[in-house]
Amino acid sequence: MSTVPFFGELSPVAYRGPESRDPLSYRWYDKDRVVLGKRMEDHLRLAACYWHSFCWPGADPFGGETFLRPWMKAGLDPMAAARMKADAAFEMFRLLDIPFFCFHDLDAAPEGATLAESVNNLKAITEVFAAKMENAKVRLLWGTANLFSHRRYMAGAATNPDPEVFLYACAQVRAVLEATHALGGANYVMWGGREGYETLLNTDMKREMDQMGRFVSMVVEHKHKIGFKGPILIEPKPREPTKHQYDFDVATVYGFLERYDLLADVKVNIEQNHAILAGHSFQHEVALALALGIFGSLDMNRGDPLLGWDTDQFANDVGELTVVFHDILNGGGLTTGGLNFDAKIRRQSLDPADLLHGHIGGIDTCARALLQAAVMLEDAALTGPLAERYAAWDGEEGRAIMAGERDLARLADRAVADNLNPQPRSGRQEYLENLVNRYV
Amino acid sequence: MSTVPFFGELSPVAYRGPESRDPLSYRWYDKDRVVLGKRMEDHLRLAACYWHSFCWPGADPFGGETFLRPWMKAGLDPMAAARMKADAAFEMFRLLDIPFFCFHDLDAAPEGATLAESVNNLKAITEVFAAKMENAKVRLLWGTANLFSHRRYMAGAATNPDPEVFLYACAQVRAVLEATHALGGANYVMWGGREGYETLLNTDMKREMDQMGRFVSMVVEHKHKIGFKGPILIEPKPREPTKHQYDFDVATVYGFLERYDLLADVKVNIEQNHAILAGHSFQHEVALALALGIFGSLDMNRGDPLLGWDTDQFANDVGELTVVFHDILNGGGLTTGGLNFDAKIRRQSLDPADLLHGHIGGIDTCARALLQAAVMLEDAALTGPLAERYAAWDGEEGRAIMAGERDLARLADRAVADNLNPQPRSGRQEYLENLVNRYV
Amino acid sequence: MSTVPFFGELSPVAYRGPESRDPLSYRWYDKDRVVLGKRMEDHLRLAACYWHSFCWPGADPFGGETFLRPWMKAGLDPMAAARMKADAAFEMFRLLDIPFFCFHDLDAAPEGATLAESVNNLKAITEVFAAKMENAKVRLLWGTANLFSHRRYMAGAATNPDPEVFLYACAQVRAVLEATHALGGANYVMWGGREGYETLLNTDMKREMDQMGRFVSMVVEHKHKIGFKGPILIEPKPREPTKHQYDFDVATVYGFLERYDLLADVKVNIEQNHAILAGHSFQHEVALALALGIFGSLDMNRGDPLLGWDTDQFANDVGELTVVFHDILNGGGLTTGGLNFDAKIRRQSLDPADLLHGHIGGIDTCARALLQAAVMLEDAALTGPLAERYAAWDGEEGRAIMAGERDLARLADRAVADNLNPQPRSGRQEYLENLVNRYV
Amino acid sequence: MSTVPFFGELSPVAYRGPESRDPLSYRWYDKDRVVLGKRMEDHLRLAACYWHSFCWPGADPFGGETFLRPWMKAGLDPMAAARMKADAAFEMFRLLDIPFFCFHDLDAAPEGATLAESVNNLKAITEVFAAKMENAKVRLLWGTANLFSHRRYMAGAATNPDPEVFLYACAQVRAVLEATHALGGANYVMWGGREGYETLLNTDMKREMDQMGRFVSMVVEHKHKIGFKGPILIEPKPREPTKHQYDFDVATVYGFLERYDLLADVKVNIEQNHAILAGHSFQHEVALALALGIFGSLDMNRGDPLLGWDTDQFANDVGELTVVFHDILNGGGLTTGGLNFDAKIRRQSLDPADLLHGHIGGIDTCARALLQAAVMLEDAALTGPLAERYAAWDGEEGRAIMAGERDLARLADRAVADNLNPQPRSGRQEYLENLVNRYV
Repeated sequence: MSTVPFFGELSPVAYRGPESRDPLSYRWYDKDRVVLGKRMEDHLRLAACYWHSFCWPGADPFGGETFLRPWMKAGLDPMAAARMKADAAFEMFRLLDIPFFCFHDLDAAPEGATLAESVNNLKAITEVFAAKMENAKVRLLWGTANLFSHRRYMAGAATNPDPEVFLYACAQVRAVLEATHALGGANYVMWGGREGYETLLNTDMKREMDQMGRFVSMVVEHKHKIGFKGPILIEPKPREPTKHQYDFDVATVYGFLERYDLLADVKVNIEQNHAILAGHSFQHEVALALALGIFGSLDMNRGDPLLGWDTDQFANDVGELTVVFHDILNGGGLTTGGLNFDAKIRRQSLDPADLLHGHIGGIDTCARALLQAAVMLEDAALTGPLAERYAAWDGEEGRAIMAGERDLARLADRAVADNLNPQPRSGRQEYLENLVNRYV
Repeated sequence: MSTVPFFGELSPVAYRGPESRDPLSYRWYDKDRVVLGKRMEDHLRLAACYWHSFCWPGADPFGGETFLRPWMKAGLDPMAAARMKADAAFEMFRLLDIPFFCFHDLDAAPEGATLAESVNNLKAITEVFAAKMENAKVRLLWGTANLFSHRRYMAGAATNPDPEVFLYACAQVRAVLEATHALGGANYVMWGGREGYETLLNTDMKREMDQMGRFVSMVVEHKHKIGFKGPILIEPKPREPTKHQYDFDVATVYGFLERYDLLADVKVNIEQNHAILAGHSFQHEVALALALGIFGSLDMNRGDPLLGWDTDQFANDVGELTVVFHDILNGGGLTTGGLNFDAKIRRQSLDPADLLHGHIGGIDTCARALLQAAVMLEDAALTGPLAERYAAWDGEEGRAIMAGERDLARLADRAVADNLNPQPRSGRQEYLENLVNRYV
Repeated sequence: MSTVPFFGELSPVAYRGPESRDPLSYRWYDKDRVVLGKRMEDHLRLAACYWHSFCWPGADPFGGETFLRPWMKAGLDPMAAARMKADAAFEMFRLLDIPFFCFHDLDAAPEGATLAESVNNLKAITEVFAAKMENAKVRLLWGTANLFSHRRYMAGAATNPDPEVFLYACAQVRAVLEATHALGGANYVMWGGREGYETLLNTDMKREMDQMGRFVSMVVEHKHKIGFKGPILIEPKPREPTKHQYDFDVATVYGFLERYDLLADVKVNIEQNHAILAGHSFQHEVALALALGIFGSLDMNRGDPLLGWDTDQFANDVGELTVVFHDILNGGGLTTGGLNFDAKIRRQSLDPADLLHGHIGGIDTCARALLQAAVMLEDAALTGPLAERYAAWDGEEGRAIMAGERDLARLADRAVADNLNPQPRSGRQEYLENLVNRYV
Repeated sequence: MSTVPFFGELSPVAYRGPESRDPLSYRWYDKDRVVLGKRMEDHLRLAACYWHSFCWPGADPFGGETFLRPWMKAGLDPMAAARMKADAAFEMFRLLDIPFFCFHDLDAAPEGATLAESVNNLKAITEVFAAKMENAKVRLLWGTANLFSHRRYMAGAATNPDPEVFLYACAQVRAVLEATHALGGANYVMWGGREGYETLLNTDMKREMDQMGRFVSMVVEHKHKIGFKGPILIEPKPREPTKHQYDFDVATVYGFLERYDLLADVKVNIEQNHAILAGHSFQHEVALALALGIFGSLDMNRGDPLLGWDTDQFANDVGELTVVFHDILNGGGLTTGGLNFDAKIRRQSLDPADLLHGHIGGIDTCARALLQAAVMLEDAALTGPLAERYAAWDGEEGRAIMAGERDLARLADRAVADNLNPQPRSGRQEYLENLVNRYV
């Protein structure tokens, strides 16, 4: 079976400009357009993910499969189904003209009867991928290991009370890291699926954090050993599936990296939906990672602020992304990272075309936000007032304080002696919000 | 005016045992009862706070004063009012037989017309306190500076864009730290009132975090200079008053302490209501601080999990506190820290007796939880199964992995070679929950 | 295969008193103990649910089956598996000595190749149930139809844009309502699984509410036609699986019943976890239903206030349930309704004994809460102060106002003429909370 | 003192088109522009509110006044201050060219020493307003009574346990309703400030709801008596200041209106921030009110979905409002209602110009959203697909079902006989979301 029947007669999605009424065209994503001296495609480094679009059957906790994908049909040979799935996936990459993709080992290749067989399955499918990539544009943004779906991982992988599970996880990560390297992947991602707890009553947090520290350290060592140049990226998430995930948010991951001395090799992959589940705005998480020097890559999606779980919808809020991209551009832009659409179409979006609609919406939202952010940055619309607001700290005394050349008593004495009575100045929030809206 | 009219004929609150029907007695708090080799009073180190009970008029964002405290009457001389307030406060400490209290500078003494006058006001009231403490049992658990109520701090204190505000804050903290030292305080607390932001559009997070790092470092230096032995305690809170507070939660503060090299001198003061506002259970925050080695003290109160703001109610959930105290006892108990009732009676609780009811409820809840936790710990009800659950990590190979004597490839190879297929074991959550309920 | 191997050597769970250390005994549930003139068993009307314990494989959105129940093994004949499952279920009912159970059609019997076959499957299993019930103590608290799992219902059942789906739902509900009647069920429940929306962009809320109104009306008519005496119970839930569920909470269902003139025949089945997802306390939902005269039955479970999805844990908070049972007893107690444990053991609770631990915890929590509530009610601990607080409304003028014998102008005139200046009285919240804690 | 010093040299805000770089101009609000046959001004019926901009000093629960408005200076004569405040307010209305305003009695006039004096104060200021309105464009959208700030209302107004408080509230509402009538107000609003509870332990919900029902009924009767033509509007809010407010959301208010037979005279005033605090989208609340026939007016503001309290920010999300206005236009548009900016500038926005920036942002956001919604509606972009989606219900059988001409058994029989197996169709959510984004 070829993939032609799956996407049927659908044509490649092309840029047709903001006035386009064709729902299967890009209105903003014009990949070769140069923005701040770089092609839009090179700025955004967009990636499709393998799992949501090709491995999820449309099930949720209250209902089963809705999509009826041909490669999920009962009774197929698993490796044949994996190849059929790969055909559909690469066909979508081609239709969308997307430059990157991402995958988990188990998205790509089925678990075998033994660990050795699983490793071999992955190798076989990696070769399928490599062959397809030779004739395609698409490259690998990152690979990752699924250490959370199988029941052996129900109590965590690295943080499992059973060291044998830790070993099993080592085998999986090593295989995917090497596969990622072989496919020329730009990064390697670790999302702590079940590294967390359901109840503290049965959990030794200190042990488990130390196990996780050891695990990530071993991955970093192995990365160097095999010559993989890309960074390791940890993806923060506060909860779900577990009640509490150890990689709660950017600030927590930063503390973890400090504690286990991993700052040189590990950065974060930030997801919008995970940010809001943690009680933060997406912009906050990005800005914090930039401030702390651990910004790596983005899982680009959208949660519903009124829902308490990961809805993983395609991004469509241009205003939200404009300020995010502003901060990223201001921080130097993406390097090895990219924008991975860790997003799924809704369970009721049954048609193959819906897969394209979802991605087109996300891609155009990013493109439009990038364009607006670039103008805002060129105008110094936000950076100008910001520098001005803190200017007094750039004076002699401000610099001396920050350089550690003043002590508490001296500054306190001066405040009293000078009878300081500093008057507050307007924070101008409404003015700045209106300003941003002028660009959106 | 004496305080006698304020608390009227109310008698000291005494322990009368679980069967007592006297609402103004303790049913569980029996201060001299020995638990795990220590007097209950020495375990709990209970503290009343000055602000909620004596400085809050009963106002909220939708309405004004309800309490009509005599010392808040319009037209009073501020220093006379401060002494009248101190009379009422120390009378309550006496009635409750509570061994500690806590205060902010501005709770105790009014702001003067100049900074110098403010500092002098604080000194004068500190002397009032000292005199009262000579004849009273109560000691100082901690002092702190109010760096958030005055409009000069509207954009932060240490993190203000204006260095003069930073200096002003230095003067205030120095004065309170020295007052705390003079009064024999056991700790010094820093709650980052407005150290955060309302909008990222006008905020340079990196600068502000660095300013805060510098500020805390200066406080630590000064503490050593004056010979203050107690720790500096940072109190995490995720939001409110600002949209985002930099000291979001225990994990975030840990990262901050690592980043600015403050782990040796600074610990955390954890509040239940702040924990749940951050999306964590109280037990989580305590257990995490213990695991990270930064557990200091507790602000003992209770938030409403259905409300999105700090309700600061008196603790009354024995079940919740039993597991918290279990973890604290298991971690060695409180040292310099204590249990500060950072809690207020409801706005409708107008009567002086309501102040006692609130504290009695909180105190009895803590006492009962302590008793239950101690038995649970003696029985090894939780610690036994926990040790057993992770026992395999204490084997030779487990220890070798954690000691860094194994690498990824070696463990991965072994997993494949041994054809590992680890079988999960029940987490026994329901069993453990029932077990805890047996003690509650 | 018999069920003996499933629960193995586990013995029936018996009451052994509060001091029992046997985790597989009841410490509080003493079914024949008379409380306020009624046997505890008759007060609580406890029910086990079929779905969570016997139909859920332990999967969640991030991982597959963990439990490996024998009747879920691939390749079994569906009807044979259904009978094997029934054996295990009735064995658990026996071991727990639980007087009621509840089920969905699809829990009990597999979907057939056609609608007719599905209806027949249900009939066949209903006969299996009937036969088992002859020799068992257990009775049916309620039945219900699963109108949400199959993909045909992805856009709702009664509220589907396709009338054929509405018809299909009619056929299912009719079959289960008649099966419930045949088995002597005490109530019939309707939970609006996917009666709601994912996005308003494709939703006509007015049409859908009207469809739902029509649907429930038809069910009520049919109930009368077949002589089913029990009430129809709607189960409120605010969200999940859909973004917004029409039966959001008790207040919303009340408005629906008013609008479609269903108050005479329909009441509510309230679930703790659904209450907190809607931003209400469990006590609130129960008290509101009692106040509005639509209280029917309870789905007894527990959500996690820090998580945004239905965790459906077994109840274990005695304090929370004590006030709930107080209100129910004060409102006359349960009549046709009962306490259905709509609760599941955690995904990591793999052992058959864990099923018993979960239920034992829930049952003992209810029993203990009932005992405490009864004493509190006998003491008029809460009802006394409450009556006193509102006593002035029972005076002549208060009654005249409430009887509609006063108008705004007259009361306003009187307020001015009498120069009213009412003084607030303490709400005594802390006193009352301590009072409740005396009973817990 | 004149108001000139307050707004200083600021000029009236004029429409200057989308390209305007003048932050004190309108870029989208072009009041005379005709949209769907009506002037933009007549569509939007924009209103400024008196309280946030002129009565709030910039205080929050953690800090005092920041704004230092001249009319709030200590020691002023209250009535003189009220007139000074009115000067500033009407000057802002003029500068913004806003056609409506709204106020509470206590915003406008100070509470007197007696109830009679308070009523007289209000009358006096009403005359000031009337005189100002003669020479100004601005009209009154609605008036309302502040029944929540004074301590007498701490336990509710209509729902107070003390009937004298109920009477006091009658006097206040009567005075404001008559003042509203005298000033030609278009509506009268009731926001249930403290009509709710802090704890169920001291609350009789049934009594309180009945009291509230009686109160609103009396207001409706009085409205008819004095010939006030506008509707009474209840403003839903779920919580804050109380733990639970009786007017939780639109659905709850609908049930209340049904219960107390008030549907003919009372509608809802919906606020965005209250909607999200209740767990609903703004669009949901508006669409539901339209579907139930109780849509009245809007409090136009914006909450922060990550914060749990009413932030009352100025609206600035064009995307959110476009779909809201689409639904309102599709439902016939605003009649007596309008868009009241129940919004406040941030506490740090100290400058008089910030008041203008806040309103300009909100006004332009509404204008832009209206323009986009109108085009979307003209294109039938959403209404077309919607009608098509439900078309089958408009067939003969669909209409017969909805007309009550079918019963459960008949439809069930038909489903079985026809062997129905309805196939789901894509909900097309991503397609529709992209479609909306084309208009935004």
